Amino acid sequence: MTLILSNEEIDGLLTMPECIAALEEAYGELHAGRAVTRRRSDCLTPAGSRDDAVYGFKTMDGVVPGQGFAAVRLNSDLVTWPRVGNTRRRVKVPAAPGNRYVGLVMLFSTENCEPLAIMPDGVVQRMRVGATNGLGARCMARADAGDVAVLGSGWQAGSQLMAICAVRPVKRIRCFSPDPENRARFSREMTEFLGIEVTPADSTEDAIRGADVVMCATNAIEAVFFDRWLEPGMHVSSIKIPEIDEGALRRADRVGLHFGHQEPEVVSAVGVAADDHSPGTGWQAHEGFDFSTCPTLMQMLAGEAEGRAGSREITCFINDLGLGLQFASVAGLAWRKARAAGIGHDLPTDWFTETVHP
Amino acid sequence: MTLILSNEEIDGLLTMPECIAALEEAYGELHAGRAVTRRRSDCLTPAGSRDDAVYGFKTMDGVVPGQGFAAVRLNSDLVTWPRVGNTRRRVKVPAAPGNRYVGLVMLFSTENCEPLAIMPDGVVQRMRVGATNGLGARCMARADAGDVAVLGSGWQAGSQLMAICAVRPVKRIRCFSPDPENRARFSREMTEFLGIEVTPADSTEDAIRGADVVMCATNAIEAVFFDRWLEPGMHVSSIKIPEIDEGALRRADRVGLHFGHQEPEVVSAVGVAADDHSPGTGWQAHEGFDFSTCPTLMQMLAGEAEGRAGSREITCFINDLGLGLQFASVAGLAWRKARAAGIGHDLPTDWFTETVHP
Repeated sequence: MTLILSNEEIDGLLTMPECIAALEEAYGELHAGRAVTRRRSDCLTPAGSRDDAVYGFKTMDGVVPGQGFAAVRLNSDLVTWPRVGNTRRRVKVPAAPGNRYVGLVMLFSTENCEPLAIMPDGVVQRMRVGATNGLGARCMARADAGDVAVLGSGWQAGSQLMAICAVRPVKRIRCFSPDPENRARFSREMTEFLGIEVTPADSTEDAIRGADVVMCATNAIEAVFFDRWLEPGMHVSSIKIPEIDEGALRRADRVGLHFGHQEPEVVSAVGVAADDHSPGTGWQAHEGFDFSTCPTLMQMLAGEAEGRAGSREITCFINDLGLGLQFASVAGLAWRKARAAGIGHDLPTDWFTETVHP
Repeated sequence: MTLILSNEEIDGLLTMPECIAALEEAYGELHAGRAVTRRRSDCLTPAGSRDDAVYGFKTMDGVVPGQGFAAVRLNSDLVTWPRVGNTRRRVKVPAAPGNRYVGLVMLFSTENCEPLAIMPDGVVQRMRVGATNGLGARCMARADAGDVAVLGSGWQAGSQLMAICAVRPVKRIRCFSPDPENRARFSREMTEFLGIEVTPADSTEDAIRGADVVMCATNAIEAVFFDRWLEPGMHVSSIKIPEIDEGALRRADRVGLHFGHQEPEVVSAVGVAADDHSPGTGWQAHEGFDFSTCPTLMQMLAGEAEGRAGSREITCFINDLGLGLQFASVAGLAWRKARAAGIGHDLPTDWFTETVHP
């Protein structure tokens, strides 16, 4: 049987420590040359009737044979770029029936090829971004880091906090995001979820003052963290390349990258100024910075590069391009736990296999 | 609702002339820079417990906004390379439950992003390969070509004949394949299906003698058609790069390519000698041939390159790399016809969409 899972079901199944463990194992397989991952590709075309939007069809694949999983993560999106406050944002339009988004993970077995599961990508996406930055913080943040600031109060901000709490002895958290209601609601909810006090802050400065770890988790496509806010011993992480200003990267003692200085493959019928590839929103945001000597997460996890030397270093971690490998590993974990718990909706595997040699 | 279709249902819906028309339109969109296609990627890893096989996870994407469709075609395969008779073959193992293969097309709307359909790739794959070579023959074969030979008696050989009959006034067909029972069965079945006499031949030579069009449709990964068999005015087509020997390409007056001299993107944990990328099975089969001046199907369809000049030219058409675009177009056609006919299995679209911004 092929399992259909919902975000709600996956949300109840996945814990951050398990996601971190699964990803660490997958990175080990990748580093050893047994697993593979294909960088994301973006097919971009005009978007039918809307001329303020672009249609984007994005896929990324990964295979982790040691865990027994292959996956493709795919997104079918309408994307717009409105200005919100002082920053430009990249906004996906929930265009599907019921005002819904379209992102899926298709999970397969490397043992017998069968389609194991089809699930929305939301929770898996959220957990793998969190787990990746958790691994980054484990390599690069001070071991005694107990004071955390988070910039952003959305879906991704929550998993960033789950991740740092999984790898560091966190005692205090402050949250800043532009909307007072959002940051108050987020702080209330995360206090309850984590069992650690999360306090809303009135400004970025108020949030980061005294923080050992600052986690950027916004959907801004411009910098939200600047060098003037850096303090000795601080670790700053981002979930999008431009969030940490180039000046801050320059002042940092070490900058770690998730996967390396790579671009998605763009196949575009709408020019280059599309999606997150607008000028200044990808690596172009940091044209003056030399990323060539930055260690990657795999190198740090394998002990081939040091993430921090001493308690006063300033470190940054950029969670750049997402990997299909992450989806194979974390969606595989969700499938395993769902099967064990008897959760989800079974469909006949025959619906998704065939007798003819294609 | 998201539609689940089976190969049997799709087989009853798609006609070759409609597939040819849909693909011609899609190539026009691509040529005009409105549609996009991502070349196939192959992620290759060890295959669990079998050491004579490789696990392959392959995807290709395409978006044809003029038709309203985006698609990814994906394959989850165990591949082996046994010797059969005189030729090496690439054989996919039906490893999924019930001895089944795993190939899928996921179809989406470019208007509202929604997942329109999930279907096995078999029939769509077969029809798009046939339709592509049909377009190739329409551009390159003599207008009065009535005598056809087909080398191969499998699934793909049938759609090659459907395609040539859709574009040329075919009167006689001969089939050769190594197994006498297979070629007899195929000839019987295709005679009935096409309403044109298909005769089994005892050798390649017997099949191609007097043929205006020779269609190679084998799963050989070595040459099956050689230059000594060429006759003035003949058109020879292949569904795999190595089928037509390099000597024959050299003697031909014109060689047309489906998409151009491109390789799939290979991300491999098992070295280069994997899948159809074994030495000599891709473009490497023709290292001495200069493909750089060969016209592509798009160029011939757009009238930018001539497929044939005069009745005595020898022409070849190589159906090289498959395109995601073909799957968007032909699977989109299958979905439209299935919806109109009320065929298929409806699942709630909410199962494959989400409320969270991924």
